[in-house]
Amino acid sequence: MNPDRIENVLNRLEADAMLVSDPYAIRYLTGKHIYPGERFLGLLLKRNETPILFLNTLFPFEEMKGLKLVSYSDGDDICELLSPYIDPSCTLGVDKTLPARFLLPMQKTHLAADFINGSIAVDKTRAVKDEEELKLMRKSSQINDEAMAIFKTLVHEDVSEKEIADQTLKIYQDLGAEGYSFEPIVAFGKNAADPHHMLDDTKLQIGDAVLFDIGCTYHGYCSDMTRTFFFRKGPNEKAKEVYELVRKANEDATASVKAGVRLCDIDKTARDVIENGGYGQYFTHRLGHFIGIEDHEYGDVSAAFKDLTEENNVFSIEPGIYDPETLGCRIEDLVVVTKDGCEVLNHYPHDIEII
Amino acid sequence: MNPDRIENVLNRLEADAMLVSDPYAIRYLTGKHIYPGERFLGLLLKRNETPILFLNTLFPFEEMKGLKLVSYSDGDDICELLSPYIDPSCTLGVDKTLPARFLLPMQKTHLAADFINGSIAVDKTRAVKDEEELKLMRKSSQINDEAMAIFKTLVHEDVSEKEIADQTLKIYQDLGAEGYSFEPIVAFGKNAADPHHMLDDTKLQIGDAVLFDIGCTYHGYCSDMTRTFFFRKGPNEKAKEVYELVRKANEDATASVKAGVRLCDIDKTARDVIENGGYGQYFTHRLGHFIGIEDHEYGDVSAAFKDLTEENNVFSIEPGIYDPETLGCRIEDLVVVTKDGCEVLNHYPHDIEII
Repeated sequence: MNPDRIENVLNRLEADAMLVSDPYAIRYLTGKHIYPGERFLGLLLKRNETPILFLNTLFPFEEMKGLKLVSYSDGDDICELLSPYIDPSCTLGVDKTLPARFLLPMQKTHLAADFINGSIAVDKTRAVKDEEELKLMRKSSQINDEAMAIFKTLVHEDVSEKEIADQTLKIYQDLGAEGYSFEPIVAFGKNAADPHHMLDDTKLQIGDAVLFDIGCTYHGYCSDMTRTFFFRKGPNEKAKEVYELVRKANEDATASVKAGVRLCDIDKTARDVIENGGYGQYFTHRLGHFIGIEDHEYGDVSAAFKDLTEENNVFSIEPGIYDPETLGCRIEDLVVVTKDGCEVLNHYPHDIEII
Repeated sequence: MNPDRIENVLNRLEADAMLVSDPYAIRYLTGKHIYPGERFLGLLLKRNETPILFLNTLFPFEEMKGLKLVSYSDGDDICELLSPYIDPSCTLGVDKTLPARFLLPMQKTHLAADFINGSIAVDKTRAVKDEEELKLMRKSSQINDEAMAIFKTLVHEDVSEKEIADQTLKIYQDLGAEGYSFEPIVAFGKNAADPHHMLDDTKLQIGDAVLFDIGCTYHGYCSDMTRTFFFRKGPNEKAKEVYELVRKANEDATASVKAGVRLCDIDKTARDVIENGGYGQYFTHRLGHFIGIEDHEYGDVSAAFKDLTEENNVFSIEPGIYDPETLGCRIEDLVVVTKDGCEVLNHYPHDIEII
């Protein structure tokens, strides 16, 4: 149990009680990871009351100090299960991910007077990492740096994207990670110009760009980094120009990070570089996303996200240009916001590298 | 696009329109698999109208006959996006998995007069497989049978559960599968008595039970099978009794399957065998679940599920006894309901096998 985090959530909550159902949020607050599949899992938080965990008897659970357990079995009615613990006149915060199959019956049976998306209270707490979390995130990114240096040695002519990706999990595990934070993206040549390319049997040809967007978890904490290499032959002039624009967008945006700046302004710094270079139409996504125990957490570095950065926010800076005629390229690092700047968690260089 | 399936869904729908958001359901209806992450993805179905797909511009999409595409960008308001296409006086079916972060704003902005869980219309359509689907499910289970025969040869003294599991993906892929239908469960000794055991570093000892609960996908269709072996030494008398009870529960339940019987009665057939044998308290879960493009689909073989079987339903029969003092054991096959009985998709034998 992590009473400080729970208190932090309740302090931010704009409802009378909060029903957390997301397994990652529950793990963040209790230290216990339970994956309930399609079954209901809930952690009810009320001010000055012991949190209650609602858990199917199928999942083994050891008693924990500071947590009350309410068990149920397959076939039990979830609304009946919850109703003794929730005041029907209250406003209940529910998780943003709570599925309609639970939410709609809660509404129809008037489990609470009103339901709001209360996740923001959990999300904003999660967005500010504590020292323990930062230590794990540094280590996770350090492993990711080491992995990148190994992955680039796996390439050879005619190897397929899939054949490379098939070798990455074991390398991560040998380096001390538990596994992926997301399925690795390996993209050759024109595939690098699709920002969400799915691995396929494309074979590597001399002169291709080789994009690795990779991440692992270490004690549950995620890393996420992208580098774009060139196979056996450097980029032509135009491709080089694209690469250097992306690099400058990454580095200028990173230099603009410190506590108290608007996240949309960090996005703008990178976007301006790419737009002024004439490639604005090919930078088709936000600059970055927050990250922690999930690869994508609440918080964007995008034009639409006007919140201010806080110390110990962790997010990605990942500008890209996806021009199928010239080059698909992305350079991504994770940064931790500090009072006067930021700590970049990735140390793998940004230089053009021929592999 | 699969107009027959869409018509089938609309015929079953108890609402004016249906907003499908589950990527698997969308793939089932359109043939196109899109994984939107946290972004909104929706397929709007209305009677006698062309289905509309709402898709973020980030995801490349080729035009399809019989489908209208409405694109949006990060930052766009989803309710504003949908509202021109939905009559505010209608009852809108939404998917059971639609997250609260989309459903609550739809309700607050009165996108529709009422919202109901409309997934049952999709689920009941998906529960009856067509010939094309059955062909793929047979092949998926055939690969799973072959994989089981290989996996059992990987064991040796002091090997860990994780070391075995790490080798399984490549074996599946070499056999022609795309990947797992779920992360394999490999459980040694007492771990086999936890029906949801997570892989760990437990090392295999002579005399241990070795439980494999495994499945792969073939052209997107899932297999799922469990066998419990014994390492180097057969079970003692009591453990043998437990094994034979589970086997009889599996086989009696399978013999009771045909079109038009209640699913709860199939569960009861297996449960009676185990209860009469004195181990009822150790059979702690439902007998089975439906399966198809997802490992767990709508439809249970459980005491609570009183629906009748229909021809071409596909589900698992997986009784287990989890007695930590004697034996943890599960035997699972997939069956296809036929008019007069069922077709068992797994052919790996049920006999006690020492490996």
